[in-house]
Parts: sequence; structure tokens; C-alpha cells
Amino acid sequence: MRMRKKKWADPYLEEHSDYALSDPQELRGRWSEVLGKEEVHVEIGTGKGDYMNAMAAMYPETAWIGIEKDRSAAAVAVRKAIENGTDLDRKRMIVGDAEHLLEWFAEGEADVIHLNFSDPWPKTRYHKRRLSSKTFLDMYRVILKPEGCIRMKTDNQDLFEDSVLYFLENGFTLKEFSVNYRRNPHEEDAVTEYEQRFMDQGMPVYQLAAYPKRG
Amino acid sequence: MRMRKKKWADPYLEEHSDYALSDPQELRGRWSEVLGKEEVHVEIGTGKGDYMNAMAAMYPETAWIGIEKDRSAAAVAVRKAIENGTDLDRKRMIVGDAEHLLEWFAEGEADVIHLNFSDPWPKTRYHKRRLSSKTFLDMYRVILKPEGCIRMKTDNQDLFEDSVLYFLENGFTLKEFSVNYRRNPHEEDAVTEYEQRFMDQGMPVYQLAAYPKRG
Repeated sequence: MRMRKKKWADPYLEEHSDYALSDPQELRGRWSEVLGKEEVHVEIGTGKGDYMNAMAAMYPETAWIGIEKDRSAAAVAVRKAIENGTDLDRKRMIVGDAEHLLEWFAEGEADVIHLNFSDPWPKTRYHKRRLSSKTFLDMYRVILKPEGCIRMKTDNQDLFEDSVLYFLENGFTLKEFSVNYRRNPHEEDAVTEYEQRFMDQGMPVYQLAAYPKRG
Repeated sequence: MRMRKKKWADPYLEEHSDYALSDPQELRGRWSEVLGKEEVHVEIGTGKGDYMNAMAAMYPETAWIGIEKDRSAAAVAVRKAIENGTDLDRKRMIVGDAEHLLEWFAEGEADVIHLNFSDPWPKTRYHKRRLSSKTFLDMYRVILKPEGCIRMKTDNQDLFEDSVLYFLENGFTLKEFSVNYRRNPHEEDAVTEYEQRFMDQGMPVYQLAAYPKRG
């Protein structure tokens, strides 16, 4: 979800650095405590933040940390959250690259890591940038709680097919799996405008939940 | 792939009991030797046998055993093979229910087990009849060679989704996986008329290859 650069993004993010954290490593190991909720969700690649904002509203007992490296998209996500004004005490944005995940999160801090419509990086030489590639999975395993999981949705067939194998090759197993997630009602999972566009075109949404294998 | 009952099926199958075996347990442990090929493929639910016949023709160094419990479908499969007349020495049909698999095959006899467009048995109370359900997977693991695998294709989303979880829950891992197998060329894998009908309608074919986990 790339967008044109917004000139107002940087000053806006600085102005709201209490929500769009400039030093997230300061909260490493303390997310649950600072956000005041036991259940911690991390969305990597929030785009404009619609999923995270909708899910936080649906689940009052959850904390949400969104990560977005595109500063313009992140600024939109932050502005939407702040203008809406709800749940600000239990949500935060990190404007940065998820490759720093282990600097921001301690072992076993996250209940759920969400990957929604991540960049598919179609060219083979960029596959290692995919958010479901081995380097990232190894980090996710560290920051997930023992019962935690990764929840992924995508419209991209290549990304989904490869990701299923990445998970299985790297010590995860699947407990949920769908090749057409929205054909059945899933009221527990927010539909963003972005996802609705695929649904309106009759395109399937692929979905899975991956759990680290024990032992 | 249910079909109307054919009156000629039973006498035809009896007439060709050298090909459509009435006592397959006699070949238990000797399939490779009797069919004269090291590489042994087993297709369960052959329907009219088009896949097995086409694949045997494509791969001269393979033996094929087809299993079909519908006697009318099996009779069509046998007639097609016999009228075509090729590769008869390295193919056989078993007309019976795959629940008897362990009576027909010894440990480690099969290189590949093929499940093509199997009956999805949509009602929950019949899920245990699915050819990818636990009871069958436990038998497949016994008759597969250590490096062997199960190759599955289906048009049915529910069956595919559930089957992925069946495999992972029952000691298999996936090494191939596709949510739209025919969008890329797969000349190594025969397309039957039955499958072509789905492709002509723009319906995706779901595919996977599952391997028993070691150790």
C-alpha cells in the first residue's frame, strides 16, 4: 500500500510523538504495562491503520502496536486514530522498519502478530524482504508468547503459497487456513476498505494462523 | 465423480480380472516386482482412469495402481485402458474401498499416492470418509516409501482447507502448495477432461504435496 509522499507527515508525526513513538525501544518489555492491557497485538505494515483502529475498537481488552515504515502512510494512520480519539491510551504507532523488531520488543511480549495484505515483493531477489520470510519469522518466534500466533491475510497468490511453505519450513504449524476467507462470515475480524475492494471484485482473500511449534 | 450404474460393468470386470484384480492382496509386497518398475504410483479414486492412464503414458518408468470403489467408474477406467492397449503390463486396477489399503499394500511400497478431485463429503458426519482424513493418512504413512509423498488436487475449497490441517495435524509437512495450480504451466502433470472443465470455468485448482515427517 504505497502512497504519494505527504509534506505534512513529518511535522505531524513529530507533533504526536507520544502516540507515534520516536523511541519505541524505551518501551521494550513494558508494552503490556504501559498500554494497560494483558493482550498485546502487533500489526506490521499497518498502512493507513484502518484494521488496527477497527480491531482495537472491537476488542476493548486489547492493546495494539502498529508498525509502518512509510512515513506518509503512518501519518495518515496516526491522524485517523487521533481525530477519532478513541482507545488512544491502549494503542501506539511505531514509524520504522520491522527489521528492528527485537530492539522494540522483548521475548514473549506479543499475543498476536498481524500481517495484512503485506507487500508481496514479487521479484525473487527481494523475497527476503517479505514480512513472512525466514528472518522475520525468526524474530516473531522470539517476541511471541508461548501460545501466541501470527495471523496473515493477503490477496496475493504467490505470497500466500510461498508463505505457507516459509511457515512450515521454519518451525511453525498452521491451525487456521483458508483459500477464500470471506466466503464465510468472520465477524470477529474487521474488514477494511482496502480489503473490501478485493471482496467487491470477487477476489478471494487468503488467510492463515501460524503457531510456533513447541519443543 | 458418481455415475449411473452400468449393467455391463460387473461382467466386464470379471472378464478382465487379470487387469481389474479381484484378489489384490495376492500382490501385497510384490507390486514393484510384478509390474516390473521400481517407481510405484497409487491413485485412490481414479474415476474413469484418465489421469492414471495419461500419467502412465507420460512416464514409461513408472507402475500405476488405480483404486476405485464405484464398479461402473472402475469398469470405464478398465475399458479405456484395455481399448487403448498401452502400458497394460505396468498398470492395474483395484475395484474396492481404500479402507482395505493395508491388506493390499505392504509397508513402504508406494512412491506417490495421488488424490485427484476426491469426494469432498461436505457433511461433517461424513468427514471421516474423506480420503485425506486421519484414518487414511495413517494408512498412507505405512505404505509410503520413506521419501514418498501424497499429491492432492481438488477444486473444493472446504476439502482443501480441511485437508491442509489434516496433513499438518497428522505428521505430514507440505513441500508443494498452490491455491491456483494451473495458472502456471505444469506440463509434468496430466490434465484430464474432468479437470479441464474447472479450468474452462476459470475455477482455481488447489494442489499440494505432503511428506511424512521423519523421526
